[in-house]
Amino acid sequence: MATRLAFIGLGIMGTPMAEHLVRAGFDVTGYNRSPAKTRRLVEAGGRAANSIEEAVADADIVCVMVPDSPDVREVLAGTGGVFDTARPGTLVIDFSSIRPDVSNELWHQAKAKGFRLLDAPVSGGQAGAVNATLSIMVGGEVADVEAAQPVLQAVGKTIAHVGPPGSGQTVKAANQLIVAGHLELLAEAIVFLEAYGVDTRKAMTVLGGGLAGSAVLNQKSEAMLTRSFQPGFRVELHHKDLGIVTSAAREAGVVIPLGALVAQLMASLKAQGNADDDHSALLKLLERLNGRRS
Amino acid sequence: MATRLAFIGLGIMGTPMAEHLVRAGFDVTGYNRSPAKTRRLVEAGGRAANSIEEAVADADIVCVMVPDSPDVREVLAGTGGVFDTARPGTLVIDFSSIRPDVSNELWHQAKAKGFRLLDAPVSGGQAGAVNATLSIMVGGEVADVEAAQPVLQAVGKTIAHVGPPGSGQTVKAANQLIVAGHLELLAEAIVFLEAYGVDTRKAMTVLGGGLAGSAVLNQKSEAMLTRSFQPGFRVELHHKDLGIVTSAAREAGVVIPLGALVAQLMASLKAQGNADDDHSALLKLLERLNGRRS
Repeated sequence: MATRLAFIGLGIMGTPMAEHLVRAGFDVTGYNRSPAKTRRLVEAGGRAANSIEEAVADADIVCVMVPDSPDVREVLAGTGGVFDTARPGTLVIDFSSIRPDVSNELWHQAKAKGFRLLDAPVSGGQAGAVNATLSIMVGGEVADVEAAQPVLQAVGKTIAHVGPPGSGQTVKAANQLIVAGHLELLAEAIVFLEAYGVDTRKAMTVLGGGLAGSAVLNQKSEAMLTRSFQPGFRVELHHKDLGIVTSAAREAGVVIPLGALVAQLMASLKAQGNADDDHSALLKLLERLNGRRS
Repeated sequence: MATRLAFIGLGIMGTPMAEHLVRAGFDVTGYNRSPAKTRRLVEAGGRAANSIEEAVADADIVCVMVPDSPDVREVLAGTGGVFDTARPGTLVIDFSSIRPDVSNELWHQAKAKGFRLLDAPVSGGQAGAVNATLSIMVGGEVADVEAAQPVLQAVGKTIAHVGPPGSGQTVKAANQLIVAGHLELLAEAIVFLEAYGVDTRKAMTVLGGGLAGSAVLNQKSEAMLTRSFQPGFRVELHHKDLGIVTSAAREAGVVIPLGALVAQLMASLKAQGNADDDHSALLKLLERLNGRRS
Protein backbone atom coordinates (compact mmCIF):
# COMPACT_ATOMS: atom_id res chain seq x y z
CA MET A 1 0.00 0.00 0.00
CA ALA A 2 1.27 3.50 -0.82
CA THR A 3 2.59 5.59 2.05
CA ARG A 4 -0.16 7.94 3.20
CA LEU A 5 0.93 11.51 3.34
CA ALA A 6 -0.83 14.66 4.54
CA PHE A 7 0.27 17.99 3.07
CA ILE A 8 -0.77 21.11 4.98
CA GLY A 9 -0.30 24.44 3.19
CA LEU A 10 -0.89 24.48 -0.57
CA GLY A 11 0.50 27.86 -1.61
CA ILE A 12 2.86 28.63 -4.49
CA MET A 13 5.49 26.35 -2.94
CA GLY A 14 3.31 23.70 -1.30
CA THR A 15 1.17 22.94 -4.35
CA PRO A 16 3.96 21.92 -6.77
CA MET A 17 5.71 20.02 -3.95
CA ALA A 18 2.51 18.05 -3.18
CA GLU A 19 2.04 17.35 -6.89
CA HIS A 20 5.56 15.89 -7.10
CA LEU A 21 4.78 13.66 -4.12
CA VAL A 22 1.68 12.31 -5.90
CA ARG A 23 3.82 11.58 -8.96
CA ALA A 24 6.38 9.84 -6.76
CA GLY A 25 3.67 7.38 -5.71
CA PHE A 26 2.53 8.77 -2.36
CA ASP A 27 -1.14 8.78 -1.41
CA VAL A 28 -1.43 12.53 -0.71
CA THR A 29 -4.26 14.30 1.12
CA GLY A 30 -3.98 18.08 1.12
CA TYR A 31 -5.37 20.69 3.46
CA ASN A 32 -5.34 24.44 3.03
CA ARG A 33 -7.03 27.18 5.05
CA SER A 34 -8.53 28.53 1.79
CA PRO A 35 -10.11 25.32 0.44
CA ALA A 36 -10.01 26.48 -3.20
CA LYS A 37 -6.27 25.94 -3.21
CA THR A 38 -6.64 22.15 -2.98
CA ARG A 39 -7.96 22.05 -6.56
CA ARG A 40 -4.63 21.56 -8.35
CA LEU A 41 -3.62 18.76 -5.99
CA VAL A 42 -6.91 16.95 -6.63
CA GLU A 43 -6.43 17.37 -10.39
CA ALA A 44 -2.97 15.82 -10.02
CA GLY A 45 -4.45 12.75 -8.32
CA GLY A 46 -4.42 13.73 -4.65
CA ARG A 47 -7.33 14.23 -2.28
CA ALA A 48 -8.64 17.29 -0.42
CA ALA A 49 -9.47 17.40 3.29
CA ASN A 50 -11.66 19.94 5.07
CA SER A 51 -9.66 20.04 8.27
CA ILE A 52 -6.22 19.20 9.60
CA GLU A 53 -7.83 16.37 11.55
CA GLU A 54 -9.26 14.86 8.37
CA ALA A 55 -5.98 15.27 6.49
CA VAL A 56 -3.77 13.64 9.11
CA ALA A 57 -6.15 10.93 10.44
CA ASP A 58 -4.57 8.06 8.49
CA ALA A 59 -1.27 9.71 7.59
CA ASP A 60 2.09 8.01 7.99
CA ILE A 61 3.88 11.27 7.27
CA VAL A 62 2.67 14.88 7.63
CA CYS A 63 4.26 17.66 5.56
CA VAL A 64 3.80 21.33 6.47
CA MET A 65 4.53 24.37 4.27
CA VAL A 66 3.08 27.56 5.74
CA PRO A 67 4.38 31.16 5.85
CA ASP A 68 5.60 31.99 9.35
CA SER A 69 6.38 30.82 12.91
CA PRO A 70 2.85 31.49 14.31
CA ASP A 71 1.33 29.50 11.42
CA VAL A 72 3.50 26.46 12.10
CA ARG A 73 2.77 26.73 15.82
CA GLU A 74 -0.97 26.79 15.12
CA VAL A 75 -0.87 23.94 12.59
CA LEU A 76 1.20 21.68 14.85
CA ALA A 77 0.42 22.65 18.43
CA GLY A 78 -2.92 24.51 18.11
CA THR A 79 -6.34 23.12 19.03
CA GLY A 80 -7.32 20.59 16.38
CA GLY A 81 -3.73 20.69 15.12
CA VAL A 82 -1.40 17.86 14.18
CA PHE A 83 -0.27 17.03 17.72
CA ASP A 84 -3.96 16.84 18.75
CA THR A 85 -5.22 14.71 15.91
CA ALA A 86 -2.48 12.65 14.20
CA ARG A 87 -1.41 9.21 15.39
CA PRO A 88 1.55 9.29 17.79
CA GLY A 89 4.70 8.12 16.03
CA THR A 90 3.83 10.03 12.88
CA LEU A 91 6.79 11.66 11.15
CA VAL A 92 6.22 15.40 10.66
CA ILE A 93 8.34 17.27 8.08
CA ASP A 94 8.11 21.04 8.38
CA PHE A 95 9.24 22.68 5.13
CA SER A 96 8.31 26.18 6.38
CA SER A 97 10.97 28.83 7.08
CA ILE A 98 10.55 29.89 10.69
CA ARG A 99 12.52 30.97 13.74
CA PRO A 100 15.11 28.34 14.80
CA ASP A 101 14.10 28.76 18.46
CA VAL A 102 10.41 28.13 17.66
CA SER A 103 11.38 25.13 15.57
CA ASN A 104 13.42 23.77 18.43
CA GLU A 105 10.64 24.39 20.96
CA LEU A 106 8.12 22.60 18.71
CA TRP A 107 10.53 19.66 18.42
CA HIS A 108 10.50 19.30 22.19
CA GLN A 109 6.69 19.41 22.23
CA ALA A 110 6.56 16.84 19.44
CA LYS A 111 8.95 14.56 21.30
CA ALA A 112 6.89 14.82 24.50
CA LYS A 113 3.75 13.80 22.60
CA GLY A 114 5.42 10.91 20.78
CA PHE A 115 5.85 12.58 17.38
CA ARG A 116 8.98 12.79 15.26
CA LEU A 117 9.64 16.26 13.84
CA LEU A 118 12.13 17.49 11.24
CA ASP A 119 12.74 21.10 10.28
CA ALA A 120 13.38 21.05 6.53
CA PRO A 121 13.21 24.56 5.08
CA VAL A 122 13.95 24.88 1.38
CA SER A 123 15.73 27.22 -1.01
CA GLY A 124 15.26 27.53 -4.75
CA GLY A 125 11.96 29.39 -4.85
CA GLN A 126 8.90 28.66 -6.94
CA ALA A 127 11.07 27.42 -9.84
CA GLY A 128 12.81 24.98 -7.50
CA ALA A 129 9.45 23.70 -6.22
CA VAL A 130 8.02 23.31 -9.73
CA ASN A 131 11.13 21.51 -11.02
CA ALA A 132 11.71 19.48 -7.82
CA THR A 133 15.21 20.93 -7.60
CA LEU A 134 14.92 22.50 -4.16
CA SER A 135 17.84 22.66 -1.77
CA ILE A 136 16.62 21.28 1.55
CA MET A 137 18.41 22.02 4.84
CA VAL A 138 17.35 19.44 7.39
CA GLY A 139 17.62 19.60 11.17
CA GLY A 140 16.63 16.68 13.40
CA GLU A 141 17.53 13.16 14.47
CA VAL A 142 19.40 10.84 12.11
CA ALA A 143 16.75 8.07 12.08
CA ASP A 144 14.02 10.57 11.25
CA VAL A 145 16.06 12.09 8.41
CA GLU A 146 16.56 8.56 7.02
CA ALA A 147 12.82 7.89 7.20
CA ALA A 148 12.09 11.18 5.40
CA GLN A 149 14.47 10.58 2.47
CA PRO A 150 11.84 9.32 -0.04
CA VAL A 151 9.78 12.47 0.57
CA LEU A 152 12.76 14.82 0.50
CA GLN A 153 14.15 13.31 -2.68
CA ALA A 154 10.79 13.62 -4.43
CA VAL A 155 10.84 17.41 -4.04
CA GLY A 156 14.52 18.36 -3.78
CA LYS A 157 17.89 17.96 -5.47
CA THR A 158 20.43 19.01 -2.83
CA ILE A 159 19.50 17.59 0.56
CA ALA A 160 21.72 18.01 3.60
CA HIS A 161 21.26 16.98 7.22
CA VAL A 162 22.99 19.94 8.82
CA GLY A 163 22.56 19.19 12.53
CA PRO A 164 20.16 18.70 15.46
CA PRO A 165 16.56 20.05 15.60
CA GLY A 166 16.41 23.71 14.55
CA SER A 167 19.66 23.55 12.51
CA GLY A 168 17.78 23.49 9.22
CA GLN A 169 16.19 26.80 10.16
CA THR A 170 19.56 28.24 11.16
CA VAL A 171 21.01 27.36 7.75
CA LYS A 172 17.91 28.76 6.03
CA ALA A 173 18.42 32.00 7.96
CA ALA A 174 22.01 32.14 6.65
CA ASN A 175 20.64 31.43 3.16
CA GLN A 176 18.26 34.38 3.39
CA LEU A 177 21.04 36.64 4.66
CA ILE A 178 23.19 35.74 1.65
CA VAL A 179 20.36 36.00 -0.90
CA ALA A 180 19.24 39.42 0.33
CA GLY A 181 22.82 40.65 0.21
CA HIS A 182 23.36 39.27 -3.28
CA LEU A 183 20.18 40.97 -4.53
CA GLU A 184 21.22 44.33 -3.09
CA LEU A 185 24.77 44.06 -4.46
CA LEU A 186 23.41 43.18 -7.90
CA ALA A 187 21.05 46.16 -7.75
CA GLU A 188 23.95 48.45 -6.77
CA ALA A 189 26.08 47.10 -9.63
CA ILE A 190 23.27 47.61 -12.15
CA VAL A 191 22.46 51.17 -11.09
CA PHE A 192 26.19 51.98 -11.16
CA LEU A 193 26.64 50.47 -14.64
CA GLU A 194 23.56 52.21 -16.00
CA ALA A 195 24.86 55.55 -14.73
CA TYR A 196 27.99 54.98 -16.86
CA GLY A 197 26.01 53.89 -19.92
CA VAL A 198 27.67 50.50 -20.38
CA ASP A 199 25.90 47.60 -22.09
CA THR A 200 24.31 46.06 -18.98
CA ARG A 201 23.19 42.82 -20.64
CA LYS A 202 26.70 42.07 -21.87
CA ALA A 203 28.00 43.17 -18.47
CA MET A 204 25.72 40.60 -16.79
CA THR A 205 27.11 37.85 -19.04
CA VAL A 206 30.70 38.67 -18.26
CA LEU A 207 30.07 39.25 -14.53
CA GLY A 208 28.21 35.93 -14.38
CA GLY A 209 31.19 34.11 -15.91
CA GLY A 210 33.70 35.24 -13.27
CA LEU A 211 34.08 35.36 -9.50
CA ALA A 212 31.03 37.68 -9.29
CA GLY A 213 28.79 34.91 -10.67
CA SER A 214 25.81 33.80 -8.58
CA ALA A 215 22.43 32.10 -8.75
CA VAL A 216 20.88 35.49 -7.95
CA LEU A 217 22.62 37.07 -10.96
CA ASN A 218 21.48 34.20 -13.21
CA GLN A 219 17.89 34.24 -11.99
CA LYS A 220 17.21 37.88 -11.10
CA SER A 221 19.29 40.21 -13.29
CA GLU A 222 16.81 40.14 -16.18
CA ALA A 223 13.98 41.10 -13.80
CA MET A 224 16.07 44.00 -12.52
CA LEU A 225 17.14 45.18 -16.00
CA THR A 226 13.51 45.18 -17.19
CA ARG A 227 12.04 46.34 -13.85
CA SER A 228 9.70 43.32 -13.69
CA PHE A 229 9.00 42.74 -10.03
CA GLN A 230 5.99 40.41 -9.90
CA PRO A 231 6.72 37.60 -7.38
CA GLY A 232 8.49 35.09 -7.17
CA PHE A 233 9.38 35.56 -3.55
CA ARG A 234 7.69 38.48 -1.87
CA VAL A 235 9.43 41.33 -0.04
CA GLU A 236 7.06 40.69 2.88
CA LEU A 237 8.42 37.17 3.37
CA HIS A 238 12.06 38.08 2.92
CA HIS A 239 11.58 40.89 5.43
CA LYS A 240 10.17 38.30 7.84
CA ASP A 241 13.20 36.06 7.22
CA LEU A 242 15.66 38.90 7.80
CA GLY A 243 13.95 39.49 11.14
CA ILE A 244 14.74 35.85 11.95
CA VAL A 245 18.38 36.29 10.87
CA THR A 246 19.04 39.48 12.79
CA SER A 247 17.32 38.19 15.96
CA ALA A 248 19.11 34.86 15.84
CA ALA A 249 22.46 36.57 15.23
CA ARG A 250 21.85 38.96 18.11
CA GLU A 251 20.88 36.13 20.45
CA ALA A 252 24.09 34.29 19.61
CA GLY A 253 26.14 37.48 20.04
CA VAL A 254 27.10 37.59 16.38
CA VAL A 255 27.69 40.91 14.59
CA ILE A 256 26.67 40.83 10.89
CA PRO A 257 27.27 44.30 9.42
CA LEU A 258 26.10 43.66 5.83
CA GLY A 259 23.22 41.49 7.01
CA ALA A 260 22.03 44.23 9.34
CA LEU A 261 22.19 46.87 6.62
CA VAL A 262 20.37 44.84 4.00
CA ALA A 263 17.69 44.00 6.59
CA GLN A 264 17.17 47.75 7.01
CA LEU A 265 16.92 48.24 3.26
CA MET A 266 14.40 45.40 2.90
CA ALA A 267 12.39 46.89 5.79
CA SER A 268 12.38 50.26 4.05
CA LEU A 269 11.22 48.67 0.80
CA LYS A 270 8.31 47.08 2.65
CA ALA A 271 7.53 50.31 4.51
CA GLN A 272 7.36 52.16 1.20
CA GLY A 273 4.53 49.95 -0.02
CA ASN A 274 6.40 47.22 -1.91
CA ALA A 275 5.56 44.26 0.36
CA ASP A 276 3.98 42.32 -2.50
CA ASP A 277 6.75 42.86 -5.05
CA ASP A 278 9.42 40.26 -5.71
CA HIS A 279 12.46 40.73 -3.47
CA SER A 280 14.47 41.79 -6.55
CA ALA A 281 12.57 45.08 -6.13
CA LEU A 282 15.47 46.11 -3.87
CA LEU A 283 16.49 47.78 -7.14
CA LYS A 284 13.47 50.09 -6.85
CA LEU A 285 14.48 51.21 -3.38
CA LEU A 286 18.01 51.87 -4.62
CA GLU A 287 16.71 53.99 -7.48
CA ARG A 288 14.71 56.05 -4.99
CA LEU A 289 17.80 56.44 -2.78
CA ASN A 290 19.58 57.64 -5.91
CA GLY A 291 16.87 60.16 -6.79
CA ARG A 292 16.06 58.17 -9.91
CA ARG A 293 12.70 57.06 -11.22
CA SER A 294 10.35 55.17 -9.06
CA MET B 1 54.97 34.67 -39.63
CA ALA B 2 53.58 34.54 -36.11
CA THR B 3 52.04 37.70 -34.71
CA ARG B 4 54.61 39.44 -32.51
CA LEU B 5 53.34 40.22 -29.10
CA ALA B 6 54.89 42.14 -26.19
CA PHE B 7 53.68 41.28 -22.67
CA ILE B 8 54.47 43.83 -19.98
CA GLY B 9 53.92 42.73 -16.37
CA LEU B 10 54.65 39.08 -15.55
CA GLY B 11 53.12 38.68 -12.09
CA ILE B 12 50.85 35.88 -10.86
CA MET B 13 48.27 36.81 -13.51
CA GLY B 14 50.52 37.99 -16.35
CA THR B 15 52.82 34.96 -16.37
CA PRO B 16 50.19 32.26 -17.02
CA MET B 17 48.44 34.55 -19.53
CA ALA B 18 51.70 35.08 -21.45
CA GLU B 19 52.36 31.32 -21.36
CA HIS B 20 48.93 30.64 -22.90
CA LEU B 21 49.70 33.16 -25.65
CA VAL B 22 52.94 31.30 -26.48
CA ARG B 23 50.97 28.04 -26.65
CA ALA B 24 48.41 29.73 -28.92
CA GLY B 25 51.21 30.41 -31.44
CA PHE B 26 52.13 34.02 -30.71
CA ASP B 27 55.75 35.15 -30.73
CA VAL B 28 55.82 36.59 -27.19
CA THR B 29 58.46 38.88 -25.71
CA GLY B 30 57.98 39.64 -22.03
CA TYR B 31 59.16 42.50 -19.87
CA ASN B 32 58.94 42.82 -16.12
CA ARG B 33 60.39 45.43 -13.77
CA SER B 34 61.95 42.60 -11.71
CA PRO B 35 63.73 40.73 -14.53
CA ALA B 36 63.75 37.37 -12.69
CA LYS B 37 60.03 37.06 -13.36
CA THR B 38 60.59 36.55 -17.09
CA ARG B 39 62.07 33.08 -16.40
CA ARG B 40 58.84 31.08 -16.67
CA LEU B 41 57.87 32.78 -19.93
CA VAL B 42 61.29 31.95 -21.43
CA GLU B 43 60.95 28.31 -20.28
CA ALA B 44 57.56 28.21 -22.01
CA GLY B 45 59.14 29.33 -25.31
CA GLY B 46 58.90 33.12 -25.08
CA ARG B 47 61.67 35.70 -24.96
CA ALA B 48 62.74 38.19 -22.30
CA ALA B 49 63.41 41.89 -22.90
CA ASN B 50 65.41 44.24 -20.68
CA SER B 51 63.24 47.28 -21.32
CA ILE B 52 59.81 48.25 -22.55
CA GLU B 53 61.49 49.67 -25.65
CA GLU B 54 63.15 46.33 -26.43
CA ALA B 55 59.91 44.41 -25.78
CA VAL B 56 57.66 46.52 -27.98
CA ALA B 57 60.13 47.42 -30.80
CA ASP B 58 58.80 44.86 -33.30
CA ALA B 59 55.46 44.14 -31.63
CA ASP B 60 52.16 44.02 -33.52
CA ILE B 61 50.25 43.88 -30.25
CA VAL B 62 51.25 45.01 -26.76
CA CYS B 63 49.61 43.46 -23.68
CA VAL B 64 49.85 45.10 -20.26
CA MET B 65 49.06 43.52 -16.87
CA VAL B 66 50.28 45.68 -13.97
CA PRO B 67 48.80 46.45 -10.53
CA ASP B 68 47.37 49.98 -10.49
CA SER B 69 46.52 53.18 -12.37
CA PRO B 70 49.95 54.86 -11.87
CA ASP B 71 51.68 51.71 -13.14
CA VAL B 72 49.64 51.66 -16.35
CA ARG B 73 50.19 55.38 -16.82
CA GLU B 74 53.95 54.90 -16.46
CA VAL B 75 54.11 51.86 -18.75
CA LEU B 76 52.06 53.50 -21.50
CA ALA B 77 52.65 57.25 -21.23
CA GLY B 78 55.90 57.49 -19.22
CA THR B 79 59.34 58.29 -20.63
CA GLY B 80 60.56 55.23 -22.54
CA GLY B 81 57.03 53.85 -22.32
CA VAL B 82 54.89 52.22 -24.99
CA PHE B 83 53.65 55.45 -26.58
CA ASP B 84 57.29 56.63 -26.81
CA THR B 85 58.76 53.49 -28.27
CA ALA B 86 56.21 51.27 -30.05
CA ARG B 87 55.28 51.66 -33.70
CA PRO B 88 52.23 53.87 -34.22
CA GLY B 89 49.22 51.79 -35.15
CA THR B 90 50.13 49.12 -32.60
CA LEU B 91 47.17 47.60 -30.78
CA VAL B 92 47.55 47.88 -27.00
CA ILE B 93 45.46 45.64 -24.74
CA ASP B 94 45.47 46.70 -21.10
CA PHE B 95 44.39 43.79 -18.89
CA SER B 96 45.09 45.76 -15.68
CA SER B 97 42.27 46.84 -13.34
CA ILE B 98 42.48 50.60 -13.01
CA ARG B 99 40.34 53.72 -12.66
CA PRO B 100 37.86 54.09 -15.55
CA ASP B 101 38.68 57.80 -15.86
CA VAL B 102 42.43 57.08 -16.14
CA SER B 103 41.70 54.38 -18.69
CA ASN B 104 39.61 56.82 -20.71
CA GLU B 105 42.26 59.55 -20.48
CA LEU B 106 44.96 57.12 -21.69
CA TRP B 107 42.71 56.12 -24.58
CA HIS B 108 42.61 59.75 -25.72
CA GLN B 109 46.40 60.00 -25.44
CA ALA B 110 46.78 56.76 -27.38
CA LYS B 111 44.43 57.99 -30.09
CA ALA B 112 46.34 61.30 -30.40
CA LYS B 113 49.61 59.39 -30.90
CA GLY B 114 48.17 56.95 -33.42
CA PHE B 115 47.80 53.94 -31.12
CA ARG B 116 44.75 51.73 -30.61
CA LEU B 117 43.97 51.00 -26.94
CA LEU B 118 41.53 48.58 -25.32
CA ASP B 119 40.77 48.33 -21.62
CA ALA B 120 40.31 44.62 -20.96
CA PRO B 121 40.35 43.91 -17.21
CA VAL B 122 39.75 40.31 -16.19
CA SER B 123 37.95 38.36 -13.49
CA GLY B 124 38.57 34.80 -12.41
CA GLY B 125 41.76 35.22 -10.42
CA GLN B 126 44.93 33.18 -10.58
CA ALA B 127 42.94 29.99 -11.32
CA GLY B 128 41.24 31.71 -14.25
CA ALA B 129 44.60 32.87 -15.60
CA VAL B 130 46.20 29.42 -15.21
CA ASN B 131 43.24 27.64 -16.86
CA ALA B 132 42.63 30.34 -19.53
CA THR B 133 39.06 30.67 -18.28
CA LEU B 134 39.12 34.37 -17.43
CA SER B 135 36.11 36.60 -17.87
CA ILE B 136 37.25 39.64 -19.86
CA MET B 137 35.30 42.91 -19.88
CA VAL B 138 36.39 44.95 -22.88
CA GLY B 139 35.97 48.66 -23.49
CA GLY B 140 36.99 50.31 -26.75
CA GLU B 141 36.22 50.59 -30.45
CA VAL B 142 34.58 47.73 -32.32
CA ALA B 143 37.37 47.27 -34.91
CA ASP B 144 40.01 47.10 -32.18
CA VAL B 145 38.01 44.53 -30.21
CA GLU B 146 37.77 42.43 -33.39
CA ALA B 147 41.50 42.67 -33.93
CA ALA B 148 42.14 41.61 -30.33
CA GLN B 149 39.92 38.49 -30.42
CA PRO B 150 42.71 35.91 -31.03
CA VAL B 151 44.59 37.26 -28.00
CA LEU B 152 41.49 37.51 -25.79
CA GLN B 153 40.33 34.01 -26.69
CA ALA B 154 43.72 32.53 -25.89
CA VAL B 155 43.47 33.67 -22.26
CA GLY B 156 39.72 33.94 -21.55
CA LYS B 157 36.47 32.02 -21.74
CA THR B 158 33.75 34.69 -21.35
CA ILE B 159 34.61 37.77 -23.38
CA ALA B 160 32.24 40.73 -23.69
CA HIS B 161 32.62 44.07 -25.40
CA VAL B 162 30.68 46.16 -22.92
CA GLY B 163 30.98 49.64 -24.39
CA PRO B 164 33.28 52.53 -25.35
CA PRO B 165 36.79 53.13 -23.91
CA GLY B 166 36.79 52.85 -20.10
CA SER B 167 33.66 50.66 -19.99
CA GLY B 168 35.67 47.52 -19.30
CA GLN B 169 37.05 49.18 -16.18
CA THR B 170 33.57 50.27 -15.11
CA VAL B 171 32.30 46.69 -15.35
CA LYS B 172 35.39 45.44 -13.51
CA ALA B 173 34.64 47.95 -10.75
CA ALA B 174 31.12 46.51 -10.49
CA ASN B 175 32.66 43.04 -10.42
CA GLN B 176 34.87 43.96 -7.48
CA LEU B 177 31.92 45.51 -5.64
CA ILE B 178 29.95 42.28 -6.01
CA VAL B 179 32.87 39.99 -5.12
CA ALA B 180 33.76 41.93 -1.97
CA GLY B 181 30.12 41.86 -0.89
CA HIS B 182 29.80 38.15 -1.57
CA LEU B 183 32.94 37.43 0.48
CA GLU B 184 31.67 39.46 3.44
CA LEU B 185 28.20 37.88 3.30
CA LEU B 186 29.75 34.40 3.19
CA ALA B 187 31.94 35.28 6.17
CA GLU B 188 28.89 36.54 8.09
CA ALA B 189 26.95 33.37 7.26
CA ILE B 190 29.84 31.14 8.38
CA VAL B 191 30.43 32.93 11.68
CA PHE B 192 26.66 32.83 12.34
CA LEU B 193 26.44 29.10 11.54
CA GLU B 194 29.48 28.28 13.65
CA ALA B 195 27.95 30.13 16.60
CA TYR B 196 24.96 27.77 16.35
CA GLY B 197 27.12 24.67 15.94
CA VAL B 198 25.64 23.46 12.69
CA ASP B 199 27.64 21.29 10.27
CA THR B 200 29.16 24.11 8.22
CA ARG B 201 30.52 21.88 5.41
CA LYS B 202 27.11 20.37 4.78
CA ALA B 203 25.61 23.83 5.11
CA MET B 204 27.95 25.09 2.35
CA THR B 205 26.81 22.26 0.07
CA VAL B 206 23.14 23.00 0.55
CA LEU B 207 23.58 26.80 0.40
CA GLY B 208 25.61 26.38 -2.80
CA GLY B 209 22.79 24.37 -4.40
CA GLY B 210 20.12 27.04 -3.93
CA LEU B 211 19.58 30.73 -4.58
CA ALA B 212 22.49 31.55 -2.23
CA GLY B 213 24.92 29.79 -4.58
CA SER B 214 27.87 31.74 -5.96
CA ALA B 215 31.33 31.41 -7.44
CA VAL B 216 32.66 32.96 -4.21
CA LEU B 217 30.97 30.24 -2.15
CA ASN B 218 32.35 27.53 -4.45
CA GLN B 219 35.88 28.91 -4.51
CA LYS B 220 36.34 30.54 -1.11
CA SER B 221 34.23 28.76 1.53
CA GLU B 222 36.83 26.05 2.14
CA ALA B 223 39.50 28.72 2.72
CA MET B 224 37.22 30.44 5.22
CA LEU B 225 36.24 27.22 7.03
CA THR B 226 39.90 26.24 7.41
CA ARG B 227 41.17 29.81 7.95
CA SER B 228 43.67 29.48 5.05
CA PHE B 229 44.22 32.99 3.79
CA GLN B 230 47.34 32.81 1.60
CA PRO B 231 46.65 34.69 -1.68
CA GLY B 232 45.01 34.29 -4.23
CA PHE B 233 43.96 37.89 -4.55
CA ARG B 234 45.44 40.19 -1.96
CA VAL B 235 43.46 42.46 0.39
CA GLU B 236 45.74 45.32 -0.73
CA LEU B 237 44.55 45.01 -4.34
CA HIS B 238 40.88 44.56 -3.51
CA HIS B 239 41.11 47.61 -1.24
CA LYS B 240 42.56 49.53 -4.21
CA ASP B 241 39.67 48.32 -6.40
CA LEU B 242 37.04 49.33 -3.84
CA GLY B 243 38.57 52.80 -3.86
CA ILE B 244 37.94 52.82 -7.62
CA VAL B 245 34.32 51.66 -7.13
CA THR B 246 33.42 54.14 -4.42
CA SER B 247 35.08 57.08 -6.25
CA ALA B 248 33.46 56.21 -9.57
CA ALA B 249 30.06 55.78 -7.92
CA ARG B 250 30.42 59.11 -6.14
CA GLU B 251 31.45 60.88 -9.32
CA ALA B 252 28.37 59.51 -11.10
CA GLY B 253 26.13 60.48 -8.16
CA VAL B 254 25.34 56.85 -7.35
CA VAL B 255 24.65 55.74 -3.76
CA ILE B 256 25.83 52.17 -3.04
CA PRO B 257 25.11 51.37 0.62
CA LEU B 258 26.45 47.80 0.76
CA GLY B 259 29.40 48.67 -1.47
CA ALA B 260 30.34 51.57 0.79
CA LEU B 261 30.16 49.42 3.92
CA VAL B 262 32.20 46.54 2.53
CA ALA B 263 34.80 49.05 1.29
CA GLN B 264 35.11 50.25 4.91
CA LEU B 265 35.48 46.68 6.15
CA MET B 266 38.17 45.89 3.57
CA ALA B 267 39.97 49.13 4.51
CA SER B 268 39.87 48.09 8.16
CA LEU B 269 41.25 44.65 7.32
CA LYS B 270 44.17 46.30 5.51
CA ALA B 271 44.69 48.80 8.33
CA GLN B 272 44.90 45.93 10.82
CA GLY B 273 47.89 44.45 9.02
CA ASN B 274 46.25 41.96 6.65
CA ALA B 275 47.14 43.64 3.32
CA ASP B 276 48.96 40.54 2.07
CA ASP B 277 46.26 38.01 3.00
CA ASP B 278 43.76 36.70 0.48
CA HIS B 279 40.60 38.83 0.36
CA SER B 280 38.66 35.93 1.92
CA ALA B 281 40.38 37.08 5.15
CA LEU B 282 37.34 39.35 5.59
CA LEU B 283 36.37 36.43 7.84
CA LYS B 284 39.27 37.33 10.16
CA LEU B 285 38.05 40.90 10.50
CA LEU B 286 34.54 39.66 11.25
CA GLU B 287 35.87 37.33 13.95
CA ARG B 288 37.65 40.28 15.55
CA LEU B 289 34.45 42.37 15.36
CA ASN B 290 32.74 39.47 17.08
CA GLY B 291 35.34 39.24 19.83
CA ARG B 292 36.40 35.85 18.59
CA ARG B 293 39.90 34.51 18.00
CA SER B 294 42.49 36.14 15.74
